[in-house]
Amino acid sequence: MSLLLAMTGWHVEDWRARFQALLPDIPVVILGEPFDRRAVHYVASWKHPEGSLAGLPNLAAIFSLGAGVDFLFADQRLPEAPIARVVDPDLTTRMSEYIVLHCLMILRQQRRYDRQQPLKSWEDDRHQPAARSVRVGIMGLGELGLDAARKLQVMGFDVAGWSRSLKSVEGLTTFAGEDGMAAFLARTDILVSLLPLTPETKGTINAALLAGLARDGRLGGPFLINAGRGGLQVEADILAALEAGTLKGATLDVFETEPLPADSPLWSHPAVTVTPHNAAMSEPEAVANLIAAQIRRLEAGQPLEHVVDPKRGY
Amino acid sequence: MSLLLAMTGWHVEDWRARFQALLPDIPVVILGEPFDRRAVHYVASWKHPEGSLAGLPNLAAIFSLGAGVDFLFADQRLPEAPIARVVDPDLTTRMSEYIVLHCLMILRQQRRYDRQQPLKSWEDDRHQPAARSVRVGIMGLGELGLDAARKLQVMGFDVAGWSRSLKSVEGLTTFAGEDGMAAFLARTDILVSLLPLTPETKGTINAALLAGLARDGRLGGPFLINAGRGGLQVEADILAALEAGTLKGATLDVFETEPLPADSPLWSHPAVTVTPHNAAMSEPEAVANLIAAQIRRLEAGQPLEHVVDPKRGY
Repeated sequence: MSLLLAMTGWHVEDWRARFQALLPDIPVVILGEPFDRRAVHYVASWKHPEGSLAGLPNLAAIFSLGAGVDFLFADQRLPEAPIARVVDPDLTTRMSEYIVLHCLMILRQQRRYDRQQPLKSWEDDRHQPAARSVRVGIMGLGELGLDAARKLQVMGFDVAGWSRSLKSVEGLTTFAGEDGMAAFLARTDILVSLLPLTPETKGTINAALLAGLARDGRLGGPFLINAGRGGLQVEADILAALEAGTLKGATLDVFETEPLPADSPLWSHPAVTVTPHNAAMSEPEAVANLIAAQIRRLEAGQPLEHVVDPKRGY
Repeated sequence: MSLLLAMTGWHVEDWRARFQALLPDIPVVILGEPFDRRAVHYVASWKHPEGSLAGLPNLAAIFSLGAGVDFLFADQRLPEAPIARVVDPDLTTRMSEYIVLHCLMILRQQRRYDRQQPLKSWEDDRHQPAARSVRVGIMGLGELGLDAARKLQVMGFDVAGWSRSLKSVEGLTTFAGEDGMAAFLARTDILVSLLPLTPETKGTINAALLAGLARDGRLGGPFLINAGRGGLQVEADILAALEAGTLKGATLDVFETEPLPADSPLWSHPAVTVTPHNAAMSEPEAVANLIAAQIRRLEAGQPLEHVVDPKRGY
């Protein structure tokens, strides 16, 4: 019985060392080196090469090494086995850090001062709206969305949320479904996307959605923060909206193609802040701990936790 | 009876219009134009020229147009009259926005990504400590300090506070006085200064204080955020500590000389973020409203609120 590690872009040997220390009795094998495919009971993957997990007849569980699982569902040759997400309480904290940080950077015009500091002179427009006069709209009201909403409210922002099916959350204005989208967008100065990537949500952040955002806000135009999944956004539409002035700025942690290609205009657009898809990275030690604990649960005959529903895709 | 406006660096005519609209029955006069000094019952000042308020025999109250009152106590020829601060609930919110913003920028290495974005390539050190492993120390536990502490705790930071005399605050580790300073500094990765400027606090942020900050933290060195008063800091010592590596970065909203002179090395130091002394600006309308309300209270024979203690200087 073994644990197979399959990842792209990460240091697999570091992960092997972490897992081997936590699970000394289970051999940890790596894609690309020889191993007995029948012995693999567990897979821990981050963006494994498509098809590389085919032919694992005794697979008991697949673990995503990150919060997302879309790359697993995208693999048509994935073996049949329950898929479990990492639910790391730290990850929720990290995501809220990122969202509060970038909402505050927008509110407090940090980019304006960043441009002026090298010029050694301020041209302050004294346009400093209060947080309570800035409306943040969060798309996606799972654990991440609700934590971000609560923390933005503590900072004083006027927060509302949108989800596929209506969620009733004390103290939070909520909208739902296609019917609720127009009203949600019309009251949103900063749109925060935390939706999971599914066939239904792909390309959600497009020209039509951006055109629906508030035009009458205190920020002089709407802003977008996408810290969810790159597949949600149509980057050509975001750039066109920035050029047209219907979008005033964008903060993107995720992209249609990752890593973001060097020829993408997003890198150098003055109204765009990009980050290296690290809004909510778990500490590797925490992820390895959580997955090792799940494997020990299975070995002890207990049920797997945080299993993904393949129908919903998250 | 009249209200005298005395300010430096602000648009006085805008302020006259605001006050005159709120107090139509009280003439609003301006320093530099002819007015009857005996008729002046009220002064609203922001950094008036020293001595310019001498010879106002019927003064009933002096209002600072900002949160600080140090410039009033610095004027040896200030007439004897009670001094009232502006206590604007919005101002507390604004200050906490600034402090949470800049603590998060430090925690999430925003400056690292700002430097890398123009290079169109990430060199991510994946060193992303959790907020709970970063110790923020707040000097000054008045209304501003306590609000910032609470909001930083919501974001997950490990927060402690220091004040001149010991304050007991539920859920907050507190230190006090000279005796408590060393222990406070030794557990501080991000030092936030919100102390009032008094003869005792002048030059507090000096080489000795900076040398006492934590060296063992998760940020790879301590950071300073001064959003209080510029007179608290010795800028030569801050620059020396940055050069020596005993300080890893500084975010300064206030300066020894304001506006910050163009030849100050702070403008261009790669580890320094400066902002135009606007961490906590009240909206002018809110300030005028609060002062007009105080004047109406006095006219109605009610006592002045938020009177400053001249002995403490705040």
